Amino acid sequence: MKIRVTNYGKLIILFILCLNAGIMNGQDIIQQIVYKPIGVFHSPYSPETGAPRQGILIPEGNGTIEIYPEYQRALKNMELFEYIIVIYHLDKVQKWNHTAKPPASNPDYKFGLFATRSPNRPNPIGLATVKLEKVENGMLYVSGVDAFEGTPVLDIKPYLPSVDGVKSIQNEMIEKELGLHD
Amino acid sequence: MKIRVTNYGKLIILFILCLNAGIMNGQDIIQQIVYKPIGVFHSPYSPETGAPRQGILIPEGNGTIEIYPEYQRALKNMELFEYIIVIYHLDKVQKWNHTAKPPASNPDYKFGLFATRSPNRPNPIGLATVKLEKVENGMLYVSGVDAFEGTPVLDIKPYLPSVDGVKSIQNEMIEKELGLHD
Repeated sequence: MKIRVTNYGKLIILFILCLNAGIMNGQDIIQQIVYKPIGVFHSPYSPETGAPRQGILIPEGNGTIEIYPEYQRALKNMELFEYIIVIYHLDKVQKWNHTAKPPASNPDYKFGLFATRSPNRPNPIGLATVKLEKVENGMLYVSGVDAFEGTPVLDIKPYLPSVDGVKSIQNEMIEKELGLHD
Repeated sequence: MKIRVTNYGKLIILFILCLNAGIMNGQDIIQQIVYKPIGVFHSPYSPETGAPRQGILIPEGNGTIEIYPEYQRALKNMELFEYIIVIYHLDKVQKWNHTAKPPASNPDYKFGLFATRSPNRPNPIGLATVKLEKVENGMLYVSGVDAFEGTPVLDIKPYLPSVDGVKSIQNEMIEKELGLHD
């Protein structure tokens, strides 16, 4: 069987290929930010069991973070820190809403999503300050975990009290009033 | 001009197309996490001027976060908080290293990347607790910014002292010793 491809036809094919490549690159550079997991959470929690809101409030809740082999060299001296910040991808989140109801006493309260810790965010990024118990063979043993088993981990940072732990009476007051740990 | 494409050849082309589509989807689903900016930082800093390490230590450094129109409804009640946490994409970062030297007195110190705040991370995610001065027309006026002009913003969260601002003498000590604000 023969298929005729004229020079004109070849130009069209070339044009489609270039367009395709252009769109892909355009999306990557302009609109999309692409990350790769550096590790994964292991915890006793699943969507079925649920996970505690802001697990640091339940310090006995233990879990581990498995750092993938290619990143384990980057853990050197991590064990010097008592608290670390974990940034992870809430991979079970399907959609997001503009508003959320904080777990407050007043059921009429509705807050803008960015004024809450609801997981249903446009970019479902989880953030937790957890206690680091031990580092062994590329595993971080932590307490205060509120993530599901299998949650992809994006970054680990040391917790620096002078910049991460600011004092704010105003935030303390609103936190107490609204119980914004969602 | 004619090009012969046998049935066998057509099968090969079909196979390559399917493989291509499969790889693309596989990367998206399994390996890659894709986010879209919800806004952008405006600040007086650029790669040429440099930016302060952990800008919160220079509270007079002011900037704004422009939230894109489709996300502005999610800012409701944001102004109740004195401090907010901003998660952003360090889009100028080109590569990462397994280790980094903290800005310490001893030039021999080498720390694993995850035990530092160096921007050269596998997933270059920036994290800053900043003071919120005002919210107006989808703009957050903040002080304590350490991001470059044009930095894409991924998420905003309220700063909750009880979970985000833990007390840790150990972290305070190591922070003082090493000046880990890089």
